[in-house]
Formats: sequence, structure tokens, C-alpha cells
Amino acid sequence: MNPMKLNEFAEIFNKYFTSRLREITDISDFSRVLRHTPESGGKRLRPYLIYLFGTVLEIDSDLLMEVGTAVEIFHSGSLIHDDLPAIDNDDYRRGSLTLHKVYGEDKAILAGDFLMLYPIKILAGLPIQIDRKEKILKFWVDSSLKVIEGEYLDIKSEKMKNREFDSMREIHLRKTAALFAFCFGIPFLIAGKIDKAREYGSIGSEFGLIFQQLDDIKDELSTIEELGKTPGKDAVQGKVTILNFMELREAVNHTDTEFRRTIERIEYSEIRRTILELKDLIRKS
Amino acid sequence: MNPMKLNEFAEIFNKYFTSRLREITDISDFSRVLRHTPESGGKRLRPYLIYLFGTVLEIDSDLLMEVGTAVEIFHSGSLIHDDLPAIDNDDYRRGSLTLHKVYGEDKAILAGDFLMLYPIKILAGLPIQIDRKEKILKFWVDSSLKVIEGEYLDIKSEKMKNREFDSMREIHLRKTAALFAFCFGIPFLIAGKIDKAREYGSIGSEFGLIFQQLDDIKDELSTIEELGKTPGKDAVQGKVTILNFMELREAVNHTDTEFRRTIERIEYSEIRRTILELKDLIRKS
Repeated sequence: MNPMKLNEFAEIFNKYFTSRLREITDISDFSRVLRHTPESGGKRLRPYLIYLFGTVLEIDSDLLMEVGTAVEIFHSGSLIHDDLPAIDNDDYRRGSLTLHKVYGEDKAILAGDFLMLYPIKILAGLPIQIDRKEKILKFWVDSSLKVIEGEYLDIKSEKMKNREFDSMREIHLRKTAALFAFCFGIPFLIAGKIDKAREYGSIGSEFGLIFQQLDDIKDELSTIEELGKTPGKDAVQGKVTILNFMELREAVNHTDTEFRRTIERIEYSEIRRTILELKDLIRKS
Repeated sequence: MNPMKLNEFAEIFNKYFTSRLREITDISDFSRVLRHTPESGGKRLRPYLIYLFGTVLEIDSDLLMEVGTAVEIFHSGSLIHDDLPAIDNDDYRRGSLTLHKVYGEDKAILAGDFLMLYPIKILAGLPIQIDRKEKILKFWVDSSLKVIEGEYLDIKSEKMKNREFDSMREIHLRKTAALFAFCFGIPFLIAGKIDKAREYGSIGSEFGLIFQQLDDIKDELSTIEELGKTPGKDAVQGKVTILNFMELREAVNHTDTEFRRTIERIEYSEIRRTILELKDLIRKS
């Protein structure tokens, strides 16, 4: 197998995603509001990871696109709420105005609600064995609830003086790693490999932790032009990141080592290679 | 069968509900935030309707309590978002301060998110036949998405000058009636009676429309002491209600007639009697 690169995949995914997003409501102006954030770009890393593992397991590609769509829709919904004035108060996301800046806070709240609930409709509708579908739905709802819990811990951490590495890990495990655990594990669950789903869920969770650290390092380094959002904002808001515990150079080395160590756990050499190449992209884009 | 009265049921339900709410997260202070609104009262009408139909169908009472808990948790989550400053800007709900007034907007947004997602975990965990569970989950997610769409139409209607009876009906069908359709239909779906689930879903939907009208009439009539929320606020905010189309007296007669006509469609005499008795309670409490 020779998997597509992320940018090739993203192009194909975006076509599928855009046409799928048009179906999610019959209220035409709500549809416009709902599509703003999901269609405003993003690397499509989560759907890509589902594609990588799903392809090696020979799962139907439309099914993988559907599951990737579900995860990406949820992710957009959670970003919309994170960006709200009461939470991170971000005016820009991926270089575009955030949803509440364009359509108002009221519509942004409701759009986030809708986009976080909609994935259940996608997953409940998958054309797969019903006992596997039940497991997928349970895995999904647990993952999505962890994201909200992680957000809660994150806003709480802003007010804390005493920072501990373990409490940062706990925040990131839920806020960021839970969705990556789902992306790594779900192809195995679809294939009926329950033990492997657990194993790869755990690898995905570690991947998610390192992803968050790479993202925080990028945030520290970047300027507003490169990032499309206010740089260094997490530090300003007092969010706990790897840079509360290490100097920049040390943090870069630490994440490099951990990234490599985690990817080594993947038994498929083509996926190992492909994900290793992603690291610079995650850190730079 | 001699069904419990609503107040008897509410007492039993509240015990179950309170202990169930303690399990929904392991983050102790988020747990306090999450419990504030669900535990702040409410008639428990939706779980009661599930109980009424479920009991006549001889469904296990713990199962009915679980489904009632799911609906009531979602309902609380959606009220938390409705009350936010950017939407209805309500400081009081059921005589208590709203969640964002007590814990802040950021936590209220995340609590609403969590409470709207959590019901899927409850429903996915029900100990019932897997093919029926799939149907229940699909019915649920469609109902919950309609509630958000209805909210969207509702905030949009505030800015509209041209009021039409049909567009009010469309708002209320989604915002309010969808959850009642679920409550009326779900016991039949649990019992495997798919056609009856559809029929009773439709009766529940009509019931929900009238419930909304009774609620709007109550809102017009009541004072802040009786209601526990700012009276006449919907009118002030320009929300479209039955009173945009009828004088108060005419609206009361209209809802009386419609209520009776809808309840007549229920084939179980003991439920007909019980629900007919609820009308004054809905209009006055």
C-alpha cells in the first residue's frame, strides 16, 4: 500500500465533506452558518488518520469518509464554542473571522450545538453490522464527552497558580487526545478487531498529547500571519502548556523523542513512515 | 392500570435522577456545575409522559426512568444555552439564578454542551435489543437536532416583521414539539411497535405545539413571583407566539379545543384522563 499524502487526501476529503455538509439541515440560512467553520480550512488531519488505518485494514473508502466527516464536524463545533468571547475570545481562526464575529454569538452557540450533535446521526446511519455500530457509538460518545470535560479543565487551569505536569496531561488527554484516540482506534472497531482498537486507541491518545505539545510550541514560535490566529494567546490567557515546564529547546527535543517513540508502536511500516513525515507539518503549519 | 399523578411521579423520578446525575462525570466541580439546572426543579412532564405510555405497554420501570433521565438532561442543557446573554439573556429560571449567573458564561456553555451530548451515552447503554436500540438512537438524534433548529428559527423570528401562523408552527414543531414527539413515541419503539411509535410521535408533536401555546399564554398572564422568570419576556424580545394571532380569550379557547381534540386520539382511556387533568397544571404552574 502506498497511502496518499495529507494534502492529496485533504483535496479529496474536502469535496466529499462540502457536499455532505449541504445535507445537514433544510433551513437554508442555518446551513450557511453551519458550514462557515467546517469549510474554512484546516489540515483534515483527523479524517486522514482514519483513512490511513482504515485503508490498511481494507475498509470501504466511503465508510471512512463518513466517519472522518463525523469527527471533523464535531471538531468544528467544539472550535466554534472555544472561540466564543466567554471562552477563548478569538476573532480569527485559520485566517478567517470566527463564526460569532460573522453571524453573532447567538447563532454561533446554536451552530456549535448542532455540529456537536450531528455526528451521532452520521455514525448511527453507517451501513455496518449493528453490534459493531453500537460499540462505535459508545466509543464516540465517550470521546466527545471527554473533549468537553477537557475544555472545562482547561478554562479552570487558567485560574490556577500551581501548575503540575500531570494536571496538564490530564487536561490534554481529554481536550485533545480523546479525538485522536478515536481516529486511531475506530478503523479497528469497524473491522471488528476489538483488542486492536483498544491498543491503537492508546497509541492515538499518546499521539494526541504530543500533537498538543507541538501545537503549543508552534503557537509560541509563530506570528499572526503564519498562524491565522492571535499568537502566544494561550500563554497570555494563562493556559498550561509544555512551555510551563521546559525551555523551548528542551520542549522541542522532548516532543521529537516522544513522537518517534509513539509512532514506533504502530505495526504498519507505511503508516509509520507517513505519520513521521507529518511531524514537521504539524509543527510548522 | 391506575397511573401515578405527576407530583407523585416527580418525587420518585427526582430521587432516581439526582443519583444518576452524580455519575455523569468524575470531575467533582464540573459535576456541581452540571447538576445545577437539572436539579433546580421543573415539572418533569417529559419523563412523566414516557412513564405513562411505558407503563401501559408494561415496559420495565428502570428502563423508563433511564429514558426519562436522558430527555430531562438534554432539556436542561438546551435551557442553559437558551438562557445565555447572547440568546434569551435570562437571569432566573424556575425561581433560581440561571447557570451562567452562578458559574459564569464559559462554564454554562460547556455544561450545556455536555448535557446535550450525554443522553446518547444513556440511550446507547440501554439493556434492550440492539436493533431496537439503533432505531431509538436515530429517533433521538433527529429529535435533538430539531430542537436546535427550532431555537435557530426562533431567534431569527425575533427580527422578522411579517408574522405568519405557519412559520410560528414550524418554529414550535422543532423547538418544543420534537421532544414531546419523542416522549410519546419512544415507549412504543422500545416495545417494538414501529407503526404505533410513528402514530404516537405525531400525537406527541401536536401535544407539544399546544404545550407551547399554553406556556405562552401562561407567560402573558403571570407575574414574576408565580413564574420564577421574567414575565412577558418573550413578547418583549419579539418572539412569535399564539398571541400574535389571537386575543387572549380566543387563544385560551383555541388551545382548550385543540388540547381536547389531540388527547382524544390516545387509545388508552386512563392516559387520556390523566393528560386531560394536566392541562390546568401546564397553564397555571
